[in-house]
Amino acid sequence: MSSNPDRIFTAGLCIIGDEILSGRTQDKNIAQIARWLQVQGIRLAEVRVVADVEDRIVEAVNALRNANDYLFTTGGIGPTHDDITVDAVAKALELPVIIHPEARAILERYYADKGGLTDGRLRMARAPQGAELIRNRMSGAPGLKIGNCFLMAGVPHITAGMLDALTGTLEGGLPLLTETVGGFIPESEVADLLRTIEGAHDRCQIGSYPFFREGRVGSNFVVRSTDADELRACVDAMCDALSGAGWDFTPGGI
Amino acid sequence: MSSNPDRIFTAGLCIIGDEILSGRTQDKNIAQIARWLQVQGIRLAEVRVVADVEDRIVEAVNALRNANDYLFTTGGIGPTHDDITVDAVAKALELPVIIHPEARAILERYYADKGGLTDGRLRMARAPQGAELIRNRMSGAPGLKIGNCFLMAGVPHITAGMLDALTGTLEGGLPLLTETVGGFIPESEVADLLRTIEGAHDRCQIGSYPFFREGRVGSNFVVRSTDADELRACVDAMCDALSGAGWDFTPGGI
Repeated sequence: MSSNPDRIFTAGLCIIGDEILSGRTQDKNIAQIARWLQVQGIRLAEVRVVADVEDRIVEAVNALRNANDYLFTTGGIGPTHDDITVDAVAKALELPVIIHPEARAILERYYADKGGLTDGRLRMARAPQGAELIRNRMSGAPGLKIGNCFLMAGVPHITAGMLDALTGTLEGGLPLLTETVGGFIPESEVADLLRTIEGAHDRCQIGSYPFFREGRVGSNFVVRSTDADELRACVDAMCDALSGAGWDFTPGGI
Repeated sequence: MSSNPDRIFTAGLCIIGDEILSGRTQDKNIAQIARWLQVQGIRLAEVRVVADVEDRIVEAVNALRNANDYLFTTGGIGPTHDDITVDAVAKALELPVIIHPEARAILERYYADKGGLTDGRLRMARAPQGAELIRNRMSGAPGLKIGNCFLMAGVPHITAGMLDALTGTLEGGLPLLTETVGGFIPESEVADLLRTIEGAHDRCQIGSYPFFREGRVGSNFVVRSTDADELRACVDAMCDALSGAGWDFTPGGI
């Protein structure tokens, strides 16, 4: 799909899963989906992590799909009793749940030599009426696209496969470009300098990300813009100012 | 603070940071705070990740503090221009922002031999009026407690220090107990079994978490309850049912 330079496209992400909220599982989908969206020219505007409770999912899905161009969900599309994403999204969209014939056919083939299509497995063919499939080469069970909502797996490498299948199919704007400069520089020493440089470059944002490493304090400064020339000018101005103040830094960040 | 067995205590978490939404930084605070809350007898009910934009922070802070016993925020309390958490939380609570005298004194001592308290560093003493400090042994700059809101650092090991300082000070309910059983068992093969076992144990929840490892499909089944006897009975029933169906499994999960 072509990119549209005239506006900013945004996405919301709803992560469905008690295992994230209990701290049992370290989420990896936020970063993975955020990076993929940037390449599509779409900005991740908000993430909500909600429990496996239908009302909570419905509320988050409606808030995020209405506030953004796209909504992605991860988790809760498997075969077990705690997989209720399809029902919740259908409820949010006021659509009935059907057995998707193409999904059923895919699962029948996938499980042909693995014991066949049990009731539990057939749950993975359920879809809000009108949904299209997002292919999943890893495990048979497809993701779903309905309206501006994309329902994906919770297991990160299956999600990755679904993102691959979607690459280039969504309308986006200009991709956000970033450049990083880092050093063993306490951010509190350069806070005024950063504020001045950002103020002088309207179309750029500067993020400051402190770290502690090898017993020393440092920061990475990330400049973001959709305009390559503006980005270059802002980074150059920041580097000149840091040099002028006597700081050592590393292009690319440390 | 004592635990209250009569009700469930919940917390919301608002993660403030463009660096998480851009995918630049892998979040580690959700899992860390979730695990700490469980030990305090408090359940993490929802997480929202929002951009460094005042209106977005205000909206999330108000939604989460009103829906839960506690609200935690991470990020945006440093010295730079993109650190706007204090202003946003003060706006949400309709409170003025003041320079906290005790925070100022801490920062003056901390920076005494590091160049003194510059304007940028003084920003870290700003607080909504009436806030108490959460001590931070790592970097001087304290976290803040105001009403049921706890404002903490974005850097995970500083957040960890602030959580240490809060341990045992919040009222909670009974801690949620969990037990895990795992095996190279496709969850779709035992979906009906899990549903039946959960249905027979009212005060327990069973989560099913599939994985792919060494080229094989498997699952961990996590049973959760606030009642140790109920938990034991549910786990035993699940293990009996899995054995009866011919599955090998490992207590503790794999």
